[in-house]
Amino acid sequence: MTQAVVKTDIGYTTTDTIMVRGLNLATEIIGTFDFVDMIFHTMLSRRPSPQEKAMVNALLVTTADHGITPSSLAARLTYIGAPEALQGAVATGLLGAGSVFLGTMQNAAEMLCDAARPLAADTDDAAIRDAVRDLIRRHKAERRAIYGVGHPIHVDGDPRVPALREVSRANGFFGVHWRMMDMIAAVLASEHGKKLPVNAVGAIAAMVAAMGLDPLIARGLSLVGRSAGLLAHILEEKEAPMAREAWELVLRADPRNVLP
Amino acid sequence: MTQAVVKTDIGYTTTDTIMVRGLNLATEIIGTFDFVDMIFHTMLSRRPSPQEKAMVNALLVTTADHGITPSSLAARLTYIGAPEALQGAVATGLLGAGSVFLGTMQNAAEMLCDAARPLAADTDDAAIRDAVRDLIRRHKAERRAIYGVGHPIHVDGDPRVPALREVSRANGFFGVHWRMMDMIAAVLASEHGKKLPVNAVGAIAAMVAAMGLDPLIARGLSLVGRSAGLLAHILEEKEAPMAREAWELVLRADPRNVLP
Amino acid sequence: MTQAVVKTDIGYTTTDTIMVRGLNLATEIIGTFDFVDMIFHTMLSRRPSPQEKAMVNALLVTTADHGITPSSLAARLTYIGAPEALQGAVATGLLGAGSVFLGTMQNAAEMLCDAARPLAADTDDAAIRDAVRDLIRRHKAERRAIYGVGHPIHVDGDPRVPALREVSRANGFFGVHWRMMDMIAAVLASEHGKKLPVNAVGAIAAMVAAMGLDPLIARGLSLVGRSAGLLAHILEEKEAPMAREAWELVLRADPRNVLP
Amino acid sequence: MTQAVVKTDIGYTTTDTIMVRGLNLATEIIGTFDFVDMIFHTMLSRRPSPQEKAMVNALLVTTADHGITPSSLAARLTYIGAPEALQGAVATGLLGAGSVFLGTMQNAAEMLCDAARPLAADTDDAAIRDAVRDLIRRHKAERRAIYGVGHPIHVDGDPRVPALREVSRANGFFGVHWRMMDMIAAVLASEHGKKLPVNAVGAIAAMVAAMGLDPLIARGLSLVGRSAGLLAHILEEKEAPMAREAWELVLRADPRNVLP
Repeated sequence: MTQAVVKTDIGYTTTDTIMVRGLNLATEIIGTFDFVDMIFHTMLSRRPSPQEKAMVNALLVTTADHGITPSSLAARLTYIGAPEALQGAVATGLLGAGSVFLGTMQNAAEMLCDAARPLAADTDDAAIRDAVRDLIRRHKAERRAIYGVGHPIHVDGDPRVPALREVSRANGFFGVHWRMMDMIAAVLASEHGKKLPVNAVGAIAAMVAAMGLDPLIARGLSLVGRSAGLLAHILEEKEAPMAREAWELVLRADPRNVLP
Repeated sequence: MTQAVVKTDIGYTTTDTIMVRGLNLATEIIGTFDFVDMIFHTMLSRRPSPQEKAMVNALLVTTADHGITPSSLAARLTYIGAPEALQGAVATGLLGAGSVFLGTMQNAAEMLCDAARPLAADTDDAAIRDAVRDLIRRHKAERRAIYGVGHPIHVDGDPRVPALREVSRANGFFGVHWRMMDMIAAVLASEHGKKLPVNAVGAIAAMVAAMGLDPLIARGLSLVGRSAGLLAHILEEKEAPMAREAWELVLRADPRNVLP
Repeated sequence: MTQAVVKTDIGYTTTDTIMVRGLNLATEIIGTFDFVDMIFHTMLSRRPSPQEKAMVNALLVTTADHGITPSSLAARLTYIGAPEALQGAVATGLLGAGSVFLGTMQNAAEMLCDAARPLAADTDDAAIRDAVRDLIRRHKAERRAIYGVGHPIHVDGDPRVPALREVSRANGFFGVHWRMMDMIAAVLASEHGKKLPVNAVGAIAAMVAAMGLDPLIARGLSLVGRSAGLLAHILEEKEAPMAREAWELVLRADPRNVLP
Repeated sequence: MTQAVVKTDIGYTTTDTIMVRGLNLATEIIGTFDFVDMIFHTMLSRRPSPQEKAMVNALLVTTADHGITPSSLAARLTYIGAPEALQGAVATGLLGAGSVFLGTMQNAAEMLCDAARPLAADTDDAAIRDAVRDLIRRHKAERRAIYGVGHPIHVDGDPRVPALREVSRANGFFGVHWRMMDMIAAVLASEHGKKLPVNAVGAIAAMVAAMGLDPLIARGLSLVGRSAGLLAHILEEKEAPMAREAWELVLRADPRNVLP
């Protein structure tokens, strides 16, 4: 094996300079870029348009977390064992972002990108319905999940979806991916008798697909957003703990456990 | 043990509503808040002032990462083993944020908060110098590190520090914590013969302390910022891999390893 | 939703007793069980036969790690950032056990279990060859990897495989799964012109499949074994560091990075 | 900076050989070593005595886990989000091994090693009592925890401790560290009015200290043992799930959460 060149195009460092994607971090970025600018700059070597920035902010805000989720509960349970290592608690809360929760945004975005690729931007509803029927048929045949629909709690509709649809419309990103996502829920209801409304995962997948971003970025940005929510949970756990009580509550559910 | 109430004040969920800190996520937050608004809202139950937002953006931008660090290299090495689990690679890159790299922002902020607590905002330089001398003496006696100074690469000065100082000045957060941080470097140079300029860790610690935030938030926000930088590294690793070559480069450094 | 019973059959605790799978930890397990006994007891509610114990020891020993791998290098890079949090460094080294390295034992075991299910224990070689041809055809058609063959370094044969084959033979676990694994390499060579000898992953998958264990256990036991190897690396990193030098070696490979 | 040699003494690889601490993995280790032999060999370059092996087996067995702990509950919560990434769930369960749970074995072993260093093996009880009084005084003055005593559930005594004491006695490792650990509990009771019996952490710390091993190994081996327990929990979660129900139980504890 010949040794290939080992380098990154993201940046490099000298004794007095830090360069990131061709710009000087100290003199051209800090104080000029906001966080979403920096996300685009490091990932894509360009700054976002105001519309893209609004979309990404909505996505980060939506994934930041809320209340007790498996992710925030796991992070708190780790924190109470290792309060000196905040990074381990945050990492814990991210590790559940897989094929069932959160990480599924990547799968949903891949699903939409694949299915929408052959369709023109102005495709009529009939063509989208055909593509959706085909998608549902293939996923069933291959026993793959259909992503982005249904929610264990928000059974009549995920309240975040209308808000995200509005953000997409307002910023010019309501197109074939969103229409396909909505059509999936419609066809599941009308032709399969399944009430599975679009959920936040499906909405975010449609947004990422509409912006032409790699589906991996859907999962990636949800990790960034979630890390902020986890930080809030851990700060609260430090001030007003509840994880130990949550653990005891679970222990006591089995009467064989006898606590003092 | 009486079972305490098990709840979080961050939020709760009903079948049709998600509430976060008293606001309705769908109708009052999404589309209205940007990401930094959301960070303040979930952590502190309030929105940031424009000045605070500028400070936090500078902090997130600075910690996002650049080039090859132990953190980004570890994340890439994990990614090539488990490309289907992005969350594991991002978690890996965060787990090194401890007492030596990145996490040390928390330690530095604690150090500044403790030492500055008895000082008035308009303390003169002589009083700050005395406090710094005392701080250095105590840290030496207890064999604790002095955080926020020195850098293995930027030996003559960390280029991010003037940029962060300027952001702090422009937003009204250049006060006793920054002056103390600068004085630490000055006293180490003049009285201990040690050239250890303030580094980015020290600057960010001074910023977080000046804003009156919990030192834990210094480490926490650096994790949020870093997660975005890690995402950029992993996207590049997917398109233009270098981690396997980096690994081989390390293997070949020991001539006993014989590769094909 | 009616609240289901929330309990584990693994164990429970009272103020003076800890029960694990029906045995008293203090009076019936500690001092009587060795670690492999405990692994079987907690997972399967039974103790292993001497033959099973020999197999599992061979598997744990083989996966413990050796030299610089992406896993051990990532763990060391995390350790130098957070030496106070050993658990984060060990976790890092495990997180790469996915579909490419290490975790692939699970995929290989699933592949062997699926393909061997219709075959009798005394199936002749011709029937195994047919099953293997079919397996290769299906995996190619579905663009799925064929697991357990080939190695980037041990291109002429993985030295661990004969040793693991011998352990399996000596303990009565050399049967249809092993013969299928060997046949995969043979058919790839004779019919596809590909020199891809069985590797350690394939050998361990065959061992786990032959013992009738859940394929998940293949990945799981490799995590247990690897955790011990990672501990050895981190202990060495503490006494005789090399991770910082490895990082610099990678940095210097790009001449734009200028270190002091 | 001159580039230092970048190498590990743990092992190296050629195209046809894997060497671990001077032995050929394929021809000298696999099939000959059991797992505890391998742990000693990779960490310490030697095999354990039968007595050391019995001690380490007891330690691994004790830390493997039992029932619902914060560690196993967090691992299950991660698993249900990312069942395709077992490594993330195991990593999660390890990340809580910090200064409060599990990882505290390292702190306790350090405490015992430091305090016992000046004492001869045959020190009389009076000298040990003096050393313990001094230890308690120093820890109080520096507001550091005293490790290895007390348990939230086993308030009258940890049932594992007599079993571990017996293993230590039987294998010749009941000496000054164990006597000091027992004395700490005795002095806390008689002189401070505190009923804080020795717990499993204290017992394991005494065992590791008595064997002359680095305190880091106490935390490290508990991670190895725990990884096996976590595997059992995740296998059960796959077959007979309870994590989702546990999460709902916690949600329902706050009546503002309204589930369908």
